[in-house]
Amino acid sequence: MYDKDTVHLRLIVQKNHIQSVRVLFGDPFHWGPSDTTPETWEWKQDSTADSYMTKEYETQDFEHYIYEATPSTKRMRYAFLIDERYLYGSRETIDVIEHPDKLTHHFNYFNYPFLNEEDMFSPPAWVQDQVWYAIFPERFANGDPSINLPGTLAWGSVTNYHNRQLFGGDLQGIIDHLDYIQDIGFTGIYMTPIFPSDSTHKYDVNDYFDIDPAFGDKETFKRLVEEAHKRDMKVMLDAVYNHCGFRHPYFQDVIKHGKQSKYYDCFYIIDSDKPVINFDIDAHGKIIRESAKPLFEDKTLLNYRTFAFTPYMPKMNTNHPLMKDYLLKAAAYWITEFDIDGWRLDVSNEVSHAFWRDFRHTVKTSKREAYIVGENWENSTPWLQGDQYDGVMNYELLFPIWDYFGTNIDHNQSTSTEFKYKVNQVLTNYPKNVLPSLYNLVDSHDTTRILEICSNNIELVKLPYLFLFSFPGAPSVYYGGEIGLSGKHDPDNRRCMPWDPTEHNPDLLRHIKRLIYLRKHVPALKSVAFRWIETNDVEEYLIYQKDDVYFILSKRFKELTITLPKAMQAGEYTDLYTDQTVILSTTLLIPSYGFFILQKK
Amino acid sequence: MYDKDTVHLRLIVQKNHIQSVRVLFGDPFHWGPSDTTPETWEWKQDSTADSYMTKEYETQDFEHYIYEATPSTKRMRYAFLIDERYLYGSRETIDVIEHPDKLTHHFNYFNYPFLNEEDMFSPPAWVQDQVWYAIFPERFANGDPSINLPGTLAWGSVTNYHNRQLFGGDLQGIIDHLDYIQDIGFTGIYMTPIFPSDSTHKYDVNDYFDIDPAFGDKETFKRLVEEAHKRDMKVMLDAVYNHCGFRHPYFQDVIKHGKQSKYYDCFYIIDSDKPVINFDIDAHGKIIRESAKPLFEDKTLLNYRTFAFTPYMPKMNTNHPLMKDYLLKAAAYWITEFDIDGWRLDVSNEVSHAFWRDFRHTVKTSKREAYIVGENWENSTPWLQGDQYDGVMNYELLFPIWDYFGTNIDHNQSTSTEFKYKVNQVLTNYPKNVLPSLYNLVDSHDTTRILEICSNNIELVKLPYLFLFSFPGAPSVYYGGEIGLSGKHDPDNRRCMPWDPTEHNPDLLRHIKRLIYLRKHVPALKSVAFRWIETNDVEEYLIYQKDDVYFILSKRFKELTITLPKAMQAGEYTDLYTDQTVILSTTLLIPSYGFFILQKK
Repeated sequence: MYDKDTVHLRLIVQKNHIQSVRVLFGDPFHWGPSDTTPETWEWKQDSTADSYMTKEYETQDFEHYIYEATPSTKRMRYAFLIDERYLYGSRETIDVIEHPDKLTHHFNYFNYPFLNEEDMFSPPAWVQDQVWYAIFPERFANGDPSINLPGTLAWGSVTNYHNRQLFGGDLQGIIDHLDYIQDIGFTGIYMTPIFPSDSTHKYDVNDYFDIDPAFGDKETFKRLVEEAHKRDMKVMLDAVYNHCGFRHPYFQDVIKHGKQSKYYDCFYIIDSDKPVINFDIDAHGKIIRESAKPLFEDKTLLNYRTFAFTPYMPKMNTNHPLMKDYLLKAAAYWITEFDIDGWRLDVSNEVSHAFWRDFRHTVKTSKREAYIVGENWENSTPWLQGDQYDGVMNYELLFPIWDYFGTNIDHNQSTSTEFKYKVNQVLTNYPKNVLPSLYNLVDSHDTTRILEICSNNIELVKLPYLFLFSFPGAPSVYYGGEIGLSGKHDPDNRRCMPWDPTEHNPDLLRHIKRLIYLRKHVPALKSVAFRWIETNDVEEYLIYQKDDVYFILSKRFKELTITLPKAMQAGEYTDLYTDQTVILSTTLLIPSYGFFILQKK
Repeated sequence: MYDKDTVHLRLIVQKNHIQSVRVLFGDPFHWGPSDTTPETWEWKQDSTADSYMTKEYETQDFEHYIYEATPSTKRMRYAFLIDERYLYGSRETIDVIEHPDKLTHHFNYFNYPFLNEEDMFSPPAWVQDQVWYAIFPERFANGDPSINLPGTLAWGSVTNYHNRQLFGGDLQGIIDHLDYIQDIGFTGIYMTPIFPSDSTHKYDVNDYFDIDPAFGDKETFKRLVEEAHKRDMKVMLDAVYNHCGFRHPYFQDVIKHGKQSKYYDCFYIIDSDKPVINFDIDAHGKIIRESAKPLFEDKTLLNYRTFAFTPYMPKMNTNHPLMKDYLLKAAAYWITEFDIDGWRLDVSNEVSHAFWRDFRHTVKTSKREAYIVGENWENSTPWLQGDQYDGVMNYELLFPIWDYFGTNIDHNQSTSTEFKYKVNQVLTNYPKNVLPSLYNLVDSHDTTRILEICSNNIELVKLPYLFLFSFPGAPSVYYGGEIGLSGKHDPDNRRCMPWDPTEHNPDLLRHIKRLIYLRKHVPALKSVAFRWIETNDVEEYLIYQKDDVYFILSKRFKELTITLPKAMQAGEYTDLYTDQTVILSTTLLIPSYGFFILQKK
């Protein structure tokens, strides 16, 4: 169901095996006198002799066909006629030359029973127009040194980053730089968790209703949201609903009282005959690391389920009424009291569908236009049926981008054709109406930074960003990416944001600004109508079209003279990136790491 | 997710194209020092060198492999190694001989993030042990002639049945025959609608909170449920939630007040600038048929959405708060006030998933062990995810049975092999934990009766019943089927139940009783472990095994001497149907339309 009147039918077939697919369809209940023998009734179809599916995309092993239908009665039965001979139906495949009577055998047609608007995937309308800025608060900016914890280091004063170093980044620091963020063009910020926790990343939350004192307080956070909203910027927080912090009072109660604790079943204790923990804690309830060492060696010693195998993060049973109520209240609290605009859901794939349905209900009741985006790293179809999330972090797009543009990866780069196949996989992973509300990214606090992936080559890194900004789904930039902040995998990807302008790469910043400008002003960039024009494996360039705009990208460190593809007309174009006129004749010169965003004049 | 600890992985592959599939899997987070180079870490897998999938079923075009895994951490990443060479992963297919490094490339593995118990498909436990008796009340028994409507005909006094004839069947008639039903062995009754309506079938409900006066009153119905429960029998009603009756007060209000009606959006008025109806109604709000005639000729004239194209059944907008509230209240009302045990959902596939989720919540809150079964005629995977229905009427099973055993069908009978393929399709349509709660049937008030399909051959019709009773999912018998009541398609399939014992076929009745007895006492009959031993296309017989019981069926009107298949041992068996000993040597004689239910002694 693409919209309230439209169904998109897709058929995936083995490559190079068929010539054509025609859709046969009609209202399930539309019977009438036969045209040839009016005394008998027959099923009336709405399809015509040219209701052919379009071969839209090719992936590694398959061809993906699509057909758009708008059944006037909102109901349709349909089957696929392959090569004018094989009817692929819901119950059997028929050779209709051998069995012409079975061609319209109604019960062998698939059924789209009714287009119910309430089942439609309906993300908030504003999401597709966002350009997100992702912030890791401890390392973004220290705006209020008065709340620094003891042991806080001077900003950016190390060369080897690790996750226990404190630099004093806080909410005031974000407020102080909202103008900076806005000036680049970002329309929303997403922050990793800001709730009380014992770590710098704060993914071990000990209190879902407060702000970590090292980051500020509720008053500061309220101001942050207000200041962001004044600038027409959205604010998204991180909901860690798979696990909590070890020192969360519910878990501490379980440690203390065992089965007597009313929170005992709010967690997953593996062997209820054994103590919950088999290591020592100090007077504050913190794990004494030395005593927990055996658990790190032998994972079967853990007696409660956790995130991964870390004892610091007990997994929560979100189906327990006490826990569910607590977490849903928190989800509503930050919306109704602080007016946040969205929740990013951490480790969202490990939490039950049942919980996310309740979560969606709570969130949308609190704020109809709030955005819900899951962390899920894989194809997330079960979560994107309209009843759970509005989108996911599109790691399915990140990896093809890394594998194609990245030079610092541990395997061979993809060819242009392989890249095309992988991108096509992303384009066909979800229905077309789901793509625009995905959260697209080329790096995050959980990955190596894209600049590092591009061997710290500023010219090269412009290309993955360009691709990101020209793809359906809201693009995001991980803080510092815009000015050339690099970093290997966690913890190196969480360096302090440099605020000395001389440490900023003005060229890259200009690039990001320009891409954001174009994203906002040229609808083609966000369009889902992605069409490949050419993918050249030898010269390693790409040409694709979105609406009336052509994107040409070369990832080679050399000039290329390419022949203009037949699908593009010679003549005058505007390069939307430079606002210059480009005259295309039979060839085109692409500079090294060059790109064009061309619109026919 | 098969149960709280078990995942069933299935892989569907093109027939005769591969030799083996091995599953590679492990906890997503289990990393440790490499066995060969301990200074580097590697992903640790739990699969072994013989974690091969089993080729379980074959369908027309595919082979279906299965693997059962019980990941101790409730999480698993997995990929499929085909023919020890091709890794079928979530992102790409890898030739691991060419790219051995990619064999354990973790990100190319599918992910089962966590086995959350609350997402498990959890039908009421009692459902799998049911044997349903399906009743069309107007034609089952007239127990209270005092409430007969004017014009009621003498019971069974016609030869040509149509849907407007009244025979006075009622609830008292059902109560009077509960002993009859119980004596045969049925454990539950399902009745088509009993609410006030202008038709005999009552699928046009005008009041969801009352009993049709021609059927009785609430007191009678309460008695019916009590009497059934006294006999340990369940009672299931029919919820018509796609459309209501034309004379439902909400729709009448819309006709009267148009857009001013608060119920206007409880229906789907197509062109709001035009009157809701473009034909005449009488003083009671009934359609004057003559005036509505153009609508039957030209379906585009209807100005409101309906069931099929009948103006008598306006489609309800179950997403409108007034309508939703009304219908959900009714769903709870008959459970809490009358203690019914289940709802069968009419035209359930045309109503939104969103509504059914709310419906499930309401029903299960009213009675945790209530059964919800959809009418859906096609593969119903989207409705059987655990959040909507507990089962569907298994028409997907009915059609293969008709096509194989039926002699009075408008196309060629299936061969034994084709039947096997179609049955295997049913066995693989849903996860194994869904099959037992399906509502299985060989006919219904919406189809030709099975006896008619078998050309009214009593010996032959025993076979589809035997197959039905040996299949996973609760079998049902449509009233009269047990004593040889026949009938062509609606309206002929709704004949008056003959109550004169001389009109009953005692042989068929004995057969049904025996099958019910065996269903209750031999667990193999309901088992999901269905295994084909032999399907002979020439001699048209079948042998299949369930647990330690062998079923042998021949649909030929001639004796057959068959060679004992290798998979069956020679020796002494008990024929569970006759309780006789059968000695199998190298051959077996099957009588015409013969069958055996054999258990090795």
